[in-house]
Order: sequence, then structure tokens, then C-alpha cells
Amino acid sequence: MRISILGAGSWGTAISLLLAKKNFEVRVWDRNDKVLDDIKLNRKNDRYLPGITLPSNIIPKYDIKEAIDGAEMIVVAVPSHAVRDVCSKIKDCVIKDQIFISLTKGIEDKTFKRMSQVIEEFFSENKVAVLSGPSHAEEVSRDVPTAVVVASKHEDVALKVQDTFMTPNFRVYTNTDIIGVEIGGAVKNIIALAAGISDGLGFGDNTKAALMTRGIAEIARLGIALGANPMTFTGLSGIGDLIVTCMSMHSRNRRAGILIGKGKSLKEALEEINMVVEGVNTTKSTYQLSLNIGVEMPITTELYNVLFNGKDPKLAVTELMQRDKKDELESMLFNKVVI
Amino acid sequence: MRISILGAGSWGTAISLLLAKKNFEVRVWDRNDKVLDDIKLNRKNDRYLPGITLPSNIIPKYDIKEAIDGAEMIVVAVPSHAVRDVCSKIKDCVIKDQIFISLTKGIEDKTFKRMSQVIEEFFSENKVAVLSGPSHAEEVSRDVPTAVVVASKHEDVALKVQDTFMTPNFRVYTNTDIIGVEIGGAVKNIIALAAGISDGLGFGDNTKAALMTRGIAEIARLGIALGANPMTFTGLSGIGDLIVTCMSMHSRNRRAGILIGKGKSLKEALEEINMVVEGVNTTKSTYQLSLNIGVEMPITTELYNVLFNGKDPKLAVTELMQRDKKDELESMLFNKVVI
Repeated sequence: MRISILGAGSWGTAISLLLAKKNFEVRVWDRNDKVLDDIKLNRKNDRYLPGITLPSNIIPKYDIKEAIDGAEMIVVAVPSHAVRDVCSKIKDCVIKDQIFISLTKGIEDKTFKRMSQVIEEFFSENKVAVLSGPSHAEEVSRDVPTAVVVASKHEDVALKVQDTFMTPNFRVYTNTDIIGVEIGGAVKNIIALAAGISDGLGFGDNTKAALMTRGIAEIARLGIALGANPMTFTGLSGIGDLIVTCMSMHSRNRRAGILIGKGKSLKEALEEINMVVEGVNTTKSTYQLSLNIGVEMPITTELYNVLFNGKDPKLAVTELMQRDKKDELESMLFNKVVI
Repeated sequence: MRISILGAGSWGTAISLLLAKKNFEVRVWDRNDKVLDDIKLNRKNDRYLPGITLPSNIIPKYDIKEAIDGAEMIVVAVPSHAVRDVCSKIKDCVIKDQIFISLTKGIEDKTFKRMSQVIEEFFSENKVAVLSGPSHAEEVSRDVPTAVVVASKHEDVALKVQDTFMTPNFRVYTNTDIIGVEIGGAVKNIIALAAGISDGLGFGDNTKAALMTRGIAEIARLGIALGANPMTFTGLSGIGDLIVTCMSMHSRNRRAGILIGKGKSLKEALEEINMVVEGVNTTKSTYQLSLNIGVEMPITTELYNVLFNGKDPKLAVTELMQRDKKDELESMLFNKVVI
């Protein structure tokens, strides 16, 4: 089987390697020719996945149309702001039995679409799946035991992707709730930024655990309003991904938050990370979405004010701690809003 | 108001300090006179909460009956194996309007009772609450922002405890689901031992996040079978406490797991920690309980085999990763079993 990977960042490259080890033909495209050169000439991707050798059945393709030609699966692994552009680049050469698998986590600015919805807008006849869960690329490329979830509206597609990606160290669960899986994956980056800020301010493990727990509650409130299954947020693409993103130094979102907590501006933090920090754009789109549909998201709101309105992060945490007394279960009562 | 604290371990002492700062009269009892001497003579508890000065309204009492005399609330903060004994010591001098608050996390061996059930067995006319959540004693004693939950069948009691314990840095949510709050608090220590073993074996952040996520799924399966509300496990006493216990070096359960993962025996690990590691007894009682009521708990089962049957921890993790392919939501379908 031939599989196409669009985007050779850390995660796209780690998944290329995983599939190549399973002896599939993996064609990789990236908009940055230098990354493809590195794969072609040196069998590595030092910018995004240093220290890993890439086997010869990972084939770099400079022409995106050649990359997807004859591929049974097209894996989308570009940053969220680039998904629409990539779809428009290939819209005339995709055939309808090609399966899309989105690895991208975000909510599109202004349209508030999930990534699978952007893909479906272009390819309404194709089946789409998303892969998500606690899976730092660096660890997957070293065969560290990892468990993820694949979600699709089509059970046959979920099962096929499960079979295709599963290895003894990469355990894939299926899930039919694509909305919940995508909302969890996207919005967790907001909470990771906030958790990083808490760490940067010098708060403790208790504080971060509280932020994460109340964070998953607001992620779930948003997701359920959009039609997700509440249980998904207790799973790998919900708390699982939240845990790994808030705790690991592999996480760019957390690292950006730490820098902001230590007093750097957003601009300075992003320059220091020098890779896409998805949580920043997601904070903007999610904040606006939460206002539009009337879902209370206190952590997202505070983070929006810290990132874009110059609010002091310490004051933001203090205000989160000193809100009205609440009942925990009542605060988890969700209203379904259809938009 | 006078409040009695039974047990001057780390958590009992940190809560004494929190309440003393709110100007309550706090009477503290412990079975170990030396700990009380340290409070009395030096205004500290160096064995369990080093580096913290204890104010004069924390009054050590060598006689447990004197400790509870006239107290509006009796806080039980002894290890789980000692709760029954402490209850029997005071059974003739408790009066019925004294409120019990359990800080103890465990499931009693053989009876499979939660701690509040043990207390209710002795004091059926008294109202009982439990306090739980991500709250390392060391951090609470330093006023690190922390959020916890108080659960009681009686809403008035939950609200009263919320008012009594809440401070600007100690946020208390109420919850009516005492079963879920206690099961989460007790069983999370099992998962923390397993997470520590994963760390000790050198596995990664992905592996630990997967263990924690599948861990909360099996905690929830058990809890729901016993009558808990599923949503409680997504809250502070569920994933919140699980996160802090699996991630922080303050956690004895995690530290014991790390030592076992590095090759020490259970006995050696416990000697090195030299304080109660609640997860060990809880593994035994929970494993037996899960068999009795027919709830599948794969991580608990593997840990039981590692701790008590000499199973190689690396093999245990490998076998967890290589179980049958599953659907994530199906694996969360719970059956209520009433025992």
C-alpha cells in the first residue's frame, strides 16, 4: 500500500517512520524543500526530528500532486492555518476512494471549522478520519509505548486505519466521535499554554492539576455543545492528550507558556520556540466561538486576555482561584447547542 | 469553632495549619507521641512536614478523647488501615452532631468498605463528608493555589465544610457523589504505582499518559459499578488527583513505583520510602473487589501480579499494550453492579 504524508514536521515525520517500518511506501511532501532535501540526501529530518534515521521507503516528493498519486491514504500533517491551502492545492487530483487522515489539531479562524470539516468542504465524497491522543513525535520515533485513538464517522475507515497504524508499541483505539476527538485535540493546547504559564510563575503541582482538571471540564462543555460524546473527553484524545501536553517538555505550547509566565511577551516566546505553537491561534478562535455559542470557558477567557490584551498572568490565575463557590457536578452540566 | 484532627501525618498537619490560619481552635491527636512532642515543644512536625512553623492555636492532645471533646468537626487523617481502630477508640464519646470529615484514601481489606462507610459503621447518626482532590500537603502548607472537592450525602454538610476550609488559595468545590469521590481518591494510588513503574523502567511521557488515561477508565468502571456518578471521575477527585499523584515527586506511591521499576523488590521500596504507601494495600483490596463484582481492571490486575506474584514489570507493560484491538467508547460502557 502507498500512503501519502502532507507535511514533514515532527509528527508527520514520526508517522512516516512508523508506517515505513511497516513496509508501506510512504510519499512525503512539505512546502519547505530544504526539509525534503534533508530526507533525500541525508535520510534524516534534523529540523523537526533530530537524531532519527529515515529508511529508504520514505520517499520525498517536491510536487504535492505526485505525492498523493496512487495513495490509498492521504495523511494531513500540516499546521492548522495551512490545511485549507493544502486542500486547494490538491483539489483537482484527489480521487474519491482516497481516505483522508487528519493529524492536524486546531479550529479554523473565523469559520470555526474543525480540520476534518475543512477537508470535507473540499472533498465531500471522500471518507475522513482523525488520529489523536498522547503521542509526542520524539517518543513515537523511538518506539516508546504509546496509545492513540482514530475517529471516523465511518466504522470501516476507523478499523482500516487502526489496522494500518497499529504496532506492538503503538496501540490504536477506534472511536466514532470525530467531533469530540478533534475538539479535545485542538483545545487542549490552550490549557497547555495556561499550565505552562502556571509553571513559569512558580506555582505548584496542585495548581497545574487543578487547571488541567477544570480545563478538561471547559473543553467538554464546548465539545458537548457542538455535539460530542461526553465520554470522549475522558479518553486518550481528551485527558490523555491534555496530560502529555501539559506535563512534557516536548510540548511547544507548554514551553511557550513557561516563557510567558516568566515574563516574556507572546512575540518573544514565539520567536524563542521558532516552530508553530498551535495553542495561540486556537485561543483566539475558541474564545470567539465560546462567545458565539454561549459556553462558559473561564481558563480560555483568561488566557485570551493574557495573550492578546496584556493581562498580568499572575492576576489571571488569582482570579480563576477566587471565583464564586461552585458545585463540581453542577458545573459539568452541559447544554447542547447546535450550530 | 473547635476542630479535631486525628492523625498528624503530612496531610493532617497541612490541614491543621490551613484551619489554624483561619483562626479555628485545632486540636491534633496522633498515636505517635513524638510527633505531638515536636508540635508542642518546637511548633513543627519535622517528620511529616519539614520546614513549616505551626501556630499556637494548633494544640496537640495526647488523649484522643480530649482531642475530640467539644469539636464541631472531627477530621480523620490516619492511614486507611488505622481508621477502624481510631473509630473504636472514640466510639463512646462522640456526640451525634459532630461532623466527620475523612481525608483518608483507601478501601478496607476484606470488607471492601470505603473509609466513610467504616466511619458510618461506628457512627450511624453522624453526618460524614470526605475531602479529596489534587493537594500535596507540602504545597498546601506553602499556600500554593489548590482546588479540591468535598463530598457528602448531606448538602448542608458539604456547604458547611466548603465554607470552613475555603481560602483564597484553597478552592473547595462541593459534590454529592461520595462514592465516586472516595473510589477515585483510593484507586488512583494504584495507577500512580503503575505510572511510577513505567517511569522507573525508562518509558516515556506517552506511555505514562496512556496508563493514566486507561487507568481512569478502569477506576470509573469500578466506581460506576458501585453506584458512582461517571462525571465525578472527570473532576478534581478523579483525573485531578490522578494527575498530581502520577506526576509529582511528592507522591510516595509514584516514588515506590519508580523504585520497583528500577528493579527493587516491594519490600526494599517500602523500606526506602519509610512512610505508608496506601496504593499497596489498595491494590490488594481493589483486585479482590474487582474479581468479586466482575469489573475488568487490567492495570490493577497487572500491578497485583507485579507486587504480589513476582511478575516482571516490563512484561506487564508489554502485555497491557498488546491486548486485543478495542473501541474506546465501547470500553467505557459501564454496567452498574449493586453490591
